[in-house]
Amino acid sequence: MRTQVGIIGAGPAGLLLSHVLHLRGISSVVLERRSRDHVERRVRAGVLEQGTVDTLIEAGVGDRMLREGLPHHGIELRYGGAGHRIAFDELVPGRSITVYGQQEVVKDLIEARLAAGGDIRFDVENVALHSLESQPYVTFGDGERLDCDVIAGCDGFHGVSRPSVPEGVLRTFEREYPFAWLGVLAEVTPSAEELIYARNERGFALHSMRSPTVSRFYLQVPPDVDADDWPDERIWDELRARLETVPGFTLATGPIIEKGVTPMRSFVVEPMQYGRLYLAGDAAHIVPPTGAKGLNLAVADVRVLTEALDAYFRDGSTALLDGYSAACLRRVWRAQHFSWWMTTLLHTFDEDDDYGRRLQLSHLDYVTSSEAAATTLAENYVGLPFDLTGPL
Amino acid sequence: MRTQVGIIGAGPAGLLLSHVLHLRGISSVVLERRSRDHVERRVRAGVLEQGTVDTLIEAGVGDRMLREGLPHHGIELRYGGAGHRIAFDELVPGRSITVYGQQEVVKDLIEARLAAGGDIRFDVENVALHSLESQPYVTFGDGERLDCDVIAGCDGFHGVSRPSVPEGVLRTFEREYPFAWLGVLAEVTPSAEELIYARNERGFALHSMRSPTVSRFYLQVPPDVDADDWPDERIWDELRARLETVPGFTLATGPIIEKGVTPMRSFVVEPMQYGRLYLAGDAAHIVPPTGAKGLNLAVADVRVLTEALDAYFRDGSTALLDGYSAACLRRVWRAQHFSWWMTTLLHTFDEDDDYGRRLQLSHLDYVTSSEAAATTLAENYVGLPFDLTGPL
Repeated sequence: MRTQVGIIGAGPAGLLLSHVLHLRGISSVVLERRSRDHVERRVRAGVLEQGTVDTLIEAGVGDRMLREGLPHHGIELRYGGAGHRIAFDELVPGRSITVYGQQEVVKDLIEARLAAGGDIRFDVENVALHSLESQPYVTFGDGERLDCDVIAGCDGFHGVSRPSVPEGVLRTFEREYPFAWLGVLAEVTPSAEELIYARNERGFALHSMRSPTVSRFYLQVPPDVDADDWPDERIWDELRARLETVPGFTLATGPIIEKGVTPMRSFVVEPMQYGRLYLAGDAAHIVPPTGAKGLNLAVADVRVLTEALDAYFRDGSTALLDGYSAACLRRVWRAQHFSWWMTTLLHTFDEDDDYGRRLQLSHLDYVTSSEAAATTLAENYVGLPFDLTGPL
Repeated sequence: MRTQVGIIGAGPAGLLLSHVLHLRGISSVVLERRSRDHVERRVRAGVLEQGTVDTLIEAGVGDRMLREGLPHHGIELRYGGAGHRIAFDELVPGRSITVYGQQEVVKDLIEARLAAGGDIRFDVENVALHSLESQPYVTFGDGERLDCDVIAGCDGFHGVSRPSVPEGVLRTFEREYPFAWLGVLAEVTPSAEELIYARNERGFALHSMRSPTVSRFYLQVPPDVDADDWPDERIWDELRARLETVPGFTLATGPIIEKGVTPMRSFVVEPMQYGRLYLAGDAAHIVPPTGAKGLNLAVADVRVLTEALDAYFRDGSTALLDGYSAACLRRVWRAQHFSWWMTTLLHTFDEDDDYGRRLQLSHLDYVTSSEAAATTLAENYVGLPFDLTGPL
């Protein structure tokens, strides 16, 4: 079997890449280890930047997102007994976010790919990458082989693509946080129209949503926590304690339909490529979810890679492919910094560090009372322009 | 001996307080442990915020500062082989800084106080504070006694005022940094017109100045360093290595006339008062010098305390005195956060933390390419308005 681009992984990065390559007449095959059902149910991020929304619309896969997604024009920072709105509509006019679950994006992309005759293989085992320096190919299943011109590694942090690069080629950068997020999906109408990022002495809490009838919550928890130790009543008690801190706010509760623990980790490899292998999305970089940047960063990678592959297959030019990693990394590190910044702004760290706690409160006070500081949050949150070659 | 306000310490805070109280008809006596010569030669900060400049002019002690001080409308952040100007004149129009040594402010204040018949006692030993809860008095020298209505503790971090408060009353907040600054004064024309904050893998360096013929430099050094281990040639070599990193920049050198090591520490006590004792300036809070906030914060404290004492002596109202600490602390913590922010932005920390280094470079890239981010630096550096009761 032969294709132009072998794509490892049917997450948002791999599927979007396959689809936009198809629109430019470039063939690809997507190999996914898990089942279609699994990837379509995998609950992940839910905040789309303006640029991500634009990209999905341009790719012709935005119809349901436009119908069902929830446009948001601000978020609330809640601390010290009061809520403070970061008003995107005032601070960065014309740019907003759309709340639409990552698994919905995945469903839309799979449907579009299959409708266009795209080749996505689910439940593929034994994937291995070969000959990355010259004529790459992928072996999988029971001795099957996919020959291709280039391979796109879109298989996430735990995928096989990154470890296929020879030892010593990639430089890794990482940081672990001393806490995790317990994520909860509940069948209940959201208790507020916008996301609430709550800084609390008991730990961070996030009130979010997936639809007008499904709420999404996160609780800062110790890193080694087991979701089974958090029965529903404990979750609601803790959410109430961390969120019902302003007059008049009552948390609506309902059946919890899913819960899971997300580690908080920062990770980057440089460069994001080796030979004919190009890494995109979580395969190359991980951010803690606080800034909602993971999916959006994957989409930005795919945009850069698409242009580079287009130039390569159109006229054999390798300049953009050679510069792929360099073109991505400024945004990658911007998102890394922003995600770290949001994380340290809102979570509780060392209990004994009274100085650090006061510093954090002063920082929150500043972000919510200086227009310039609020704008730094807003412009990062809605997403910086795709062209990051000049001033931001 | 009796006065209305007993002032401990003839640094900028104590002297300015004594002078502005005098202008409002309130008597004071200043007790200083060191000699006049010592306090007039003590080299400290040299960057005055717009509000500090305005305060000194209003107090009638700004003539020489206006003649000899150097108005600056921007600073340079230097890293990665290039310089990036933070242009105050564009980002925060109408607000700038003035470079004028703290010891010059001290000289001007002493001269003004003495010309107005003010009572400043130098070389005063054995200062002790008594009866702070009711009718305070100060003993000093060989059994002398100063009775007063209130005491202003303006005697710095190592002074006697703060330790005079009973154990357990004040809550302290502190952080130490794993490095110090080696400060150098040299008789050489500054090599650039504006301050240069240089982030370098070898450590931070600051190029500053005191006059058109005197330059001021700082080098990040290990915390336990001895200035004697830094002969002049080593200092110049290191300054060159950290500052001559952009094309066309050459460091002019000359005779070094003073050098000393400044520890990097953050410290705050809450509240800044006890009974009839009110702490101002370094007696209540210390910032690392990176953001040039120490002297400016002392001036802000003095402004608040002046209004409170004026109300008290005019009509016996204690409301402002009771609220003194609360009125100061929002600015104190803003300056703490800004100083920490500038410090972490520019210094080298853990050598093994590659992730942290990349984060720092991305942060610098952001601060120098986003107008909003540059404005957060500029508005803090030139100084926020004195009225910090609303949005900043």
